[in-house]
Amino acid sequence: MDIQELRSSNPDHWMRATAIRALALDAVAAANSGHTGMPIGMADVATVLYGNHLKYDAQNPEWHDRDRFILSAGHGSMLLYALLYLSGDPEVTLDQVKNFRQWGAKTAGHPENFLLKGVETTTGPLGQGIANSVGFAMAEEMLRARFGKKLVDHYTYVIAGDGCLMEGVSQEAIGLAGRYGLGKLIVFWDNNDITIDGKVSLSDRTDQVKRFKASGWHVQEIDGHDPVAIDAAIIAAKKSKSPSMIACKTHIALGHAAQDTSKGHGALTNADQNTAAKDNWGWKTGPFEVPADIKSWWEATGSRGAADRAEWEARLNEVSAQRQAEFARVMNGEAPKKLSATIKALKKQISENAPKVATRKASEMALEVINPIMPETIGGSADLTGSNNTLTGDMGVFDTDNRKGRYIYWGIREHGMASAMNGMSLHGGVRPYGGTFMAFTDYARPPMRLAALMKTPTIFVMTHDSIGLGEDGPTHQPVEHLAISRATPNTLVFRPADAVETAEAWEIALRQTGTPSVLSLTRQNLPTVRLEHKNSNLVEKGAYVLAEAEGKRQAIIIATGSEVEIALAARDALQAEGIGTRVVSMPCMELFAQQDEAYRKRILPAGPVRVGVEAAVRQGWDRWLLGERGREAKADFVGMDRFGASAPAETLYEKFGITADNVAAKVRALLG
Amino acid sequence: MDIQELRSSNPDHWMRATAIRALALDAVAAANSGHTGMPIGMADVATVLYGNHLKYDAQNPEWHDRDRFILSAGHGSMLLYALLYLSGDPEVTLDQVKNFRQWGAKTAGHPENFLLKGVETTTGPLGQGIANSVGFAMAEEMLRARFGKKLVDHYTYVIAGDGCLMEGVSQEAIGLAGRYGLGKLIVFWDNNDITIDGKVSLSDRTDQVKRFKASGWHVQEIDGHDPVAIDAAIIAAKKSKSPSMIACKTHIALGHAAQDTSKGHGALTNADQNTAAKDNWGWKTGPFEVPADIKSWWEATGSRGAADRAEWEARLNEVSAQRQAEFARVMNGEAPKKLSATIKALKKQISENAPKVATRKASEMALEVINPIMPETIGGSADLTGSNNTLTGDMGVFDTDNRKGRYIYWGIREHGMASAMNGMSLHGGVRPYGGTFMAFTDYARPPMRLAALMKTPTIFVMTHDSIGLGEDGPTHQPVEHLAISRATPNTLVFRPADAVETAEAWEIALRQTGTPSVLSLTRQNLPTVRLEHKNSNLVEKGAYVLAEAEGKRQAIIIATGSEVEIALAARDALQAEGIGTRVVSMPCMELFAQQDEAYRKRILPAGPVRVGVEAAVRQGWDRWLLGERGREAKADFVGMDRFGASAPAETLYEKFGITADNVAAKVRALLG
Repeated sequence: MDIQELRSSNPDHWMRATAIRALALDAVAAANSGHTGMPIGMADVATVLYGNHLKYDAQNPEWHDRDRFILSAGHGSMLLYALLYLSGDPEVTLDQVKNFRQWGAKTAGHPENFLLKGVETTTGPLGQGIANSVGFAMAEEMLRARFGKKLVDHYTYVIAGDGCLMEGVSQEAIGLAGRYGLGKLIVFWDNNDITIDGKVSLSDRTDQVKRFKASGWHVQEIDGHDPVAIDAAIIAAKKSKSPSMIACKTHIALGHAAQDTSKGHGALTNADQNTAAKDNWGWKTGPFEVPADIKSWWEATGSRGAADRAEWEARLNEVSAQRQAEFARVMNGEAPKKLSATIKALKKQISENAPKVATRKASEMALEVINPIMPETIGGSADLTGSNNTLTGDMGVFDTDNRKGRYIYWGIREHGMASAMNGMSLHGGVRPYGGTFMAFTDYARPPMRLAALMKTPTIFVMTHDSIGLGEDGPTHQPVEHLAISRATPNTLVFRPADAVETAEAWEIALRQTGTPSVLSLTRQNLPTVRLEHKNSNLVEKGAYVLAEAEGKRQAIIIATGSEVEIALAARDALQAEGIGTRVVSMPCMELFAQQDEAYRKRILPAGPVRVGVEAAVRQGWDRWLLGERGREAKADFVGMDRFGASAPAETLYEKFGITADNVAAKVRALLG
Repeated sequence: MDIQELRSSNPDHWMRATAIRALALDAVAAANSGHTGMPIGMADVATVLYGNHLKYDAQNPEWHDRDRFILSAGHGSMLLYALLYLSGDPEVTLDQVKNFRQWGAKTAGHPENFLLKGVETTTGPLGQGIANSVGFAMAEEMLRARFGKKLVDHYTYVIAGDGCLMEGVSQEAIGLAGRYGLGKLIVFWDNNDITIDGKVSLSDRTDQVKRFKASGWHVQEIDGHDPVAIDAAIIAAKKSKSPSMIACKTHIALGHAAQDTSKGHGALTNADQNTAAKDNWGWKTGPFEVPADIKSWWEATGSRGAADRAEWEARLNEVSAQRQAEFARVMNGEAPKKLSATIKALKKQISENAPKVATRKASEMALEVINPIMPETIGGSADLTGSNNTLTGDMGVFDTDNRKGRYIYWGIREHGMASAMNGMSLHGGVRPYGGTFMAFTDYARPPMRLAALMKTPTIFVMTHDSIGLGEDGPTHQPVEHLAISRATPNTLVFRPADAVETAEAWEIALRQTGTPSVLSLTRQNLPTVRLEHKNSNLVEKGAYVLAEAEGKRQAIIIATGSEVEIALAARDALQAEGIGTRVVSMPCMELFAQQDEAYRKRILPAGPVRVGVEAAVRQGWDRWLLGERGREAKADFVGMDRFGASAPAETLYEKFGITADNVAAKVRALLG
């Protein structure tokens, strides 16, 4: 690449873009870690995007109608920090840039949405950003349909690297964006031919242009260092009714000794080479110094959107107060006031009628009263709608000709669904929930973890939550997935025992603003165990006494979900023998752990023997069985210590010993 | 679709294929669950494949040089069971077919490789089969290169549905097969336009032909009910030097009332409709009855390969006894005899030199002595070769022009890599291991679970196993992934403390024949803690006393991996105060759990207080801290209860309190 020609052909642009390059070079060198080459390679694209197109107001990074910019290639985080610093984001000071990757800095190794308002989504695990972006773009379409383009009308831009495109989830994202005609989604592919192990061709020879076209995308190929070509491509992409991919041929670590090599992917810390690169670029100021004229241009760019924002605010003020309030409510993720009364009414009705239904069906019953009063809910399933019970009659189906539709047929794409739901949550204004089988939590693990890390209140509706699914066999029967979800910080895992607990769990999940929820629901029917209506939400405490011991309390049986019924039957048997037995329903271990010690001790007093029952592995249970600091109780567990098998559900419960008889026997054995 | 025309144009073929249809219809109806439509739709393809092409010997389903047939669309399991029954697989009797999906039957809901020899791989979680097949085809290429085509020369056939192709992992598989020119891989796409939720177009409009072509595949489009076209396409595919995809336009539930509908995907149990379908097909015999002439044809098909097998055995007998023994050894997955001595020599050298190295580096040191004596090992990494330390000098790189290469650049495809490694393990003759960052266990979860379920001894080399990876931050720092791996049945999770334990862990992992291993390895350097050489493999016991208490034993500190160093330092501080403290290194909880109670009690006697240390969540530890039945010890834990952060590793350990000071303080507090 002839740097001199690049410098001379568009000198102003060159120096603006090189401000990004120099900051990335300096920050990575100072941190002695990070990724220098990508920000250098994509500086031109980013400069044209921010300079000429991106609708944003650097001083107000959370303005609702901003264009979204997602750095899917998150390792190139200094590209984003440089953009935010240069254009005047108040959080990204020069000190922050200098403290890149250090303790307490907001400029973390990878962009973290919970550290900086200017970061739309946490990226780094490759492919997630491009899959998030599908959700961002869907949310925009939905809100535009609901509130009108005067309030919602923006683009979603993505920079994705070769790594993002090799990850399978990218195919799910590409397929979804193509299918749903997300024309306001524009992806720049940083086509630099380099991965960590070497040339891209070492491991992939896919023709990405053909691949995107196969899914109905609008595709352009440009020189990613030519600002005129970049600008023209963005203009064309914005006009396209299909999602757009702009293949940007770039040179990683452009102008540096490491250019076009996999060394250029990582941290460039050789001082002499870095000095030579700056010379090559024509960059004369010292480390972290940006010439005033260049900084001024960037700040002007950063405030370009202030007028747009003011106009938008004026338009917002023109709509009715009620509409303004509703817009604010959904953008802030607040549940409607009547949610509480709605759930109470449903609970009362359930306790009275005592239906025997699967909790997946109970979930549908809850959604049937929730969806009409929460127009922000967006349902969906990864091709298991009838099994996950996620669709209610009033939703309508989201499609190219029905942007008001609130139900999404995600196809067989659990990973893409979960990532896109995270994108929706992050965009704001919608409240996504989506279903698959609990065992396929495995496919959705990367975004389920990221939901927790990013503090997005995405709701995962995981049905068929144990061997209770029966004949489909061990590939479809979760045994470790409750433990997996519970092991993840900042995640609420609900395993409701009946339709009342399911309604309560939904209410709690919908009130979260910073925590994702996993609803673990049965395939098989369960009796109503909450026969006495209570206004208060008992699931909120995580665990509570469902049936008290009669006589001296000798044993406590703790159970969740479908095994609460078994615990109650075991209690009946034990009480008949005079063994006073309490049954504790524990629908949410995380919420129980958050209660004060007095409450926890009231529910699980030291002394009585304890038996836990859950059709899953024991891992995660010992804290409640053995006592939080040890020496509290003699205890045992009835559950699964192996994979399941293919047979009718009742047979499996019997064969694997998850029965009232077995629970009662364990209690007796512990009592010696 | 005009069934009469199909019946009359190829009447013999029609009835042979319809035997599959009728068996699937009957078995699903009897089980009252399962998937009828897919076996009906793909019966023609399967009949031509088995009848004219597939090299197999039904009586000897494990013959090493058979063609492999993988039903990626595993829900259509009755297709496979019908094929095995009809062609005379001795395990698949008519009783087995009649007991489809029942307790104890080998004919499980989805095909399970551990129940039936004739099932190559467990499928059901969509996309796994097609990704496994990449490993099968790679293993064939590698073994052909090593042992010659006289011993190894076969095809890998796959039936994949729309669900398989929508799952992201299929793109990883398609990319890999295209890149590595796996010409003996032939995929039939069951192009029936139907998913569970409705038409495929509901959620996807990808042009699959263009998509496969974009990755360099040979693609044909045929009528999947035309036996002449199917035959011609297979002949052409076999000649292709590129992997082949045959798009088979089919009708799900062909000839049934549910044809071409999503109802046809599931269990067709309406007796009248089923009778009508059989009439339509011209099938006159009763349930589960196959006319003798048709059964004879199928049995002849099933024994067609017997001659091939005999010739192959003759060729095998022609090679040297040594070569025969080596072939048998690798196909049986036996480690070489000298492995033990090799590991001992390495351990001795490490204990003498006491290097301070990361366990990822220690893993490389182990591989440097293992790979030369185990020509069956196949290494690789998902684009982190230099970080995972998985490549040793002698391996060579697998490529289109170097099939003897033993190292695979998997690209940024953790899911595809792990699935393909499972395929290799299942094929036999090779011993795959592959690396990524421990946090990206998330991407590989579906095949990591399947490895455990399928009893394949795949080795997952997971480096950068804690906050110790430092600046890359929380997206890259596992905290829950040890718990996740440990929650999975039949999985050995090793977290070695130094280079000696790493070598021991490798030896154990390589000796497994039915259990996958996860090696959890550090980025950061660790001192050698095993300074005294022992011939015996201490990791084999799962946990052992690394440093005994001096004086009265008041405390036991249990630690793994990088935290063993911290435990030893805490012990020093406590001993200095006269607090007798034992340090237990626990590199593998699963192996420790397998020891007899006497051993476990010797290592963890009741009485002394216990503190666990691991830079991860506590989940999974309580059994060892609190005692297996409760009331054993007062205990505490030092680890992580949140996600990590971006900063240098030492800072993070300090800030998160994973320090010797904190461990010692916890011990003191427990001792009160």
